[in-house]
Amino acid sequence: MARVNDILDGADKAFETSVERLVNFLKIPSISTDPAYDPACLQAARWVRGLLTDMGFRARCVDTPVHPVVIGRYEPDHVDSKTLHILLYGHYDVQPPDPIELWKTPPFEPSRRKDSKGIESIYARGACDDKGQVMTILEASRAWLKVRKELPCRLTVLIEGDEESDCSHLDAFLAAHRDELSADFVFVCDTSMWDDCTPAITTRLRGCISEEVTISGPRIDLHSGYGNAAANPIHILAKILADLRDKRGRITLPGFYEGVHRVPKATIAEWSKLRNQDRRFLKGLGLSIPQGERGYSLLEQIWARPTCEVNGILGGYTGTGGKTVIPAQASAKLSFRLVGDQDPHAVKKSLRKFVKSRIPKDCRVAFNSTGGEARAVELARDNPFIARAAEALSEEWKRKPVFIGSGGSIPIVGSFKRVLGMDSLMTGFSLNDDGAHAPNEKYDLRCFWGGIRSWIRIFDAVADLRPIHG
Amino acid sequence: MARVNDILDGADKAFETSVERLVNFLKIPSISTDPAYDPACLQAARWVRGLLTDMGFRARCVDTPVHPVVIGRYEPDHVDSKTLHILLYGHYDVQPPDPIELWKTPPFEPSRRKDSKGIESIYARGACDDKGQVMTILEASRAWLKVRKELPCRLTVLIEGDEESDCSHLDAFLAAHRDELSADFVFVCDTSMWDDCTPAITTRLRGCISEEVTISGPRIDLHSGYGNAAANPIHILAKILADLRDKRGRITLPGFYEGVHRVPKATIAEWSKLRNQDRRFLKGLGLSIPQGERGYSLLEQIWARPTCEVNGILGGYTGTGGKTVIPAQASAKLSFRLVGDQDPHAVKKSLRKFVKSRIPKDCRVAFNSTGGEARAVELARDNPFIARAAEALSEEWKRKPVFIGSGGSIPIVGSFKRVLGMDSLMTGFSLNDDGAHAPNEKYDLRCFWGGIRSWIRIFDAVADLRPIHG
Repeated sequence: MARVNDILDGADKAFETSVERLVNFLKIPSISTDPAYDPACLQAARWVRGLLTDMGFRARCVDTPVHPVVIGRYEPDHVDSKTLHILLYGHYDVQPPDPIELWKTPPFEPSRRKDSKGIESIYARGACDDKGQVMTILEASRAWLKVRKELPCRLTVLIEGDEESDCSHLDAFLAAHRDELSADFVFVCDTSMWDDCTPAITTRLRGCISEEVTISGPRIDLHSGYGNAAANPIHILAKILADLRDKRGRITLPGFYEGVHRVPKATIAEWSKLRNQDRRFLKGLGLSIPQGERGYSLLEQIWARPTCEVNGILGGYTGTGGKTVIPAQASAKLSFRLVGDQDPHAVKKSLRKFVKSRIPKDCRVAFNSTGGEARAVELARDNPFIARAAEALSEEWKRKPVFIGSGGSIPIVGSFKRVLGMDSLMTGFSLNDDGAHAPNEKYDLRCFWGGIRSWIRIFDAVADLRPIHG
Repeated sequence: MARVNDILDGADKAFETSVERLVNFLKIPSISTDPAYDPACLQAARWVRGLLTDMGFRARCVDTPVHPVVIGRYEPDHVDSKTLHILLYGHYDVQPPDPIELWKTPPFEPSRRKDSKGIESIYARGACDDKGQVMTILEASRAWLKVRKELPCRLTVLIEGDEESDCSHLDAFLAAHRDELSADFVFVCDTSMWDDCTPAITTRLRGCISEEVTISGPRIDLHSGYGNAAANPIHILAKILADLRDKRGRITLPGFYEGVHRVPKATIAEWSKLRNQDRRFLKGLGLSIPQGERGYSLLEQIWARPTCEVNGILGGYTGTGGKTVIPAQASAKLSFRLVGDQDPHAVKKSLRKFVKSRIPKDCRVAFNSTGGEARAVELARDNPFIARAAEALSEEWKRKPVFIGSGGSIPIVGSFKRVLGMDSLMTGFSLNDDGAHAPNEKYDLRCFWGGIRSWIRIFDAVADLRPIHG
């Protein structure tokens, strides 16, 4: 790979300006789930468009029913039937910063600082999920363009703004822009390294659905002197949530495990070689005991088994001190992570039925889908794009990448396959302790730097592969 | 009772100024549970002191570890060993107004308006609990003083500011002010009428303890991709809350029912005559089916059986839309209503043990008592003070009062008995739909008016009873 040393040098020299651009991107509070931040989402989309235009791409913001999608297009000077076409996917939207009081520095005022071990990171909401990661590929492209004056392939950039909320409209978007977005392979930079010196390629993603359940009982918050007679929506909700799992940690929704497949023995054997996985994973989270489904290793629990999680719960008095009320209402936000061929729609239907059957006749329940429906994804690791990328990563990090699953979901990856027939290379450079979705989210500058360099090598490594779609 | 007609007329003529005084009292946001409102609590105490001084009482604010207690003292010109001494108890503090967005008019800007049936009420936090009720006795005293130039007894007024938070310090306060506060009987105006034309005397109160439980799991909010492995504090909490009740609605805490006695058959028979009680009670709450302990009538459930209620729950993301996290923490505010000889301290201890035994080893739990420990209270209805008050109420309302229990707690009533050996007359004029502790709390002006008139009669009815303490 000595043939890209000039580009790697160029990227290294420009690294400080790369960091500056990332900082500017992170200053925009593009929280997609909260309509109050719609103007910031628009601002982020325009910022990305400006960045692409500046790099010489043809770029535009395309309206959607929710937040705009940025599409940018780069064409080398000479294109023929052997010219590869890559689609780069990322998202400019971020999670809400709550609980805001736990941030050491404000979430949208990026802070570059060293931790107790002297490791420097940028702290901000979106630092690793996904602004920092998107910027690794864009900065790699910039280095190629700066040093070589061109990229070794056609590159279409698709940066959306609804990944953290409901991007279900993107299926229709992909179909509507089929010609423009159909490429040979997709590059997605939204996943983690195995550890801070071992790269990883993700070949399994869990699917996801999100549903808010709101139970209403008394017409107003009651004095709790009515207790033992009046229906208490928190009790009803707590019982339902408790009923959702059995003693072995299995989800009790009827039909839930339909479409869940056994993991091949070879894969299980490979995962079992990832030493100290349980201890290491959990220690980083401040935990030590796997709490999930009995009878499965921790990696199997996260990568290959479905789950139901309560992401938030609210009801009654939650201020300082006490207030002896029976609340009129209680609600919980749930999400289900799905695997194999589980049908998101069927799971949602089963949940609603399960909940409704447990609501007393004089109480009410309302449902609100707080996200789209994403199926799980599984990719073959002998795919030439993935094999070449693995070589490039080995070259950069001096270690073979680990092939991993992800407990999370990137719904669009399923859509790329289903709607446009494209497979995705998912490699990324965030770390397990980066705090994606949590306070004090960060992106390790070693990862940002290594990420840029990795993509420089990957572009080169795949450039001479035969186009899949002529 | 024609002998107090002159005083009743005087009160009727002054009614508008009585309402004005109540409105001024209600404007003070004396929320005792939230330290941010400490200045308002002090303001309310001083307002009461001013009112008493203005009526000719010797009054002062006495500091306590929490909020000041107002003590006022009235002595007739001629006092001998036959002069009765009454202690009037009430509280100037109020509950927090949350959820604030459900108030039609601001909670501390009293609004006098008619409902759809043309019934006029004052809407404000504290309107019925307990500012309006306290004012019925004070306005009755004012009418006596205005018309007759004196009250027919010695009257000591004790108005405290921690009834809605933690008034456990009042036991020590009573002991420290034993001489000053020891009277023959206590008047407490903090309970409800049976319905809007039938007065009631409360002879049973449930005890209460309040406890906040906070469960911590992961060190930060995690991406829910870790789901099915990482401990989710909401799941742990929901399971504990669900486990607190069995299928028959009984509380499962070991030892919980120790000290709970069977209600005498005669009392059960009397309660069963209170027709349509279930339907009427629940209908007012927007409910129709009793949800509590099986095998007991609704009134028995509320008046004579203990319960555990979750008053508030909070964990994870509770903003708009969804956020797929596994929260670091989840908490619930619980309160237990107690009966008979249940030991509040033992119940709290049993709860803590119950919860601790259900916390995974790598998670943590913290407890916070958000209120004092109050035992249940039961009074004999053949007590002469209660018998005379019942006659006075019959005279005013042209209906015999109903002897009722209360599902709620007035901890001080137990303390009066335990510390100072005094029994209490609990009669009050709030209605079940007044929304004590809820948004749009109100006090029906018919109740305020009838309450003032009732106390004018009660003072007269008990005045010639022999002092209990010489």
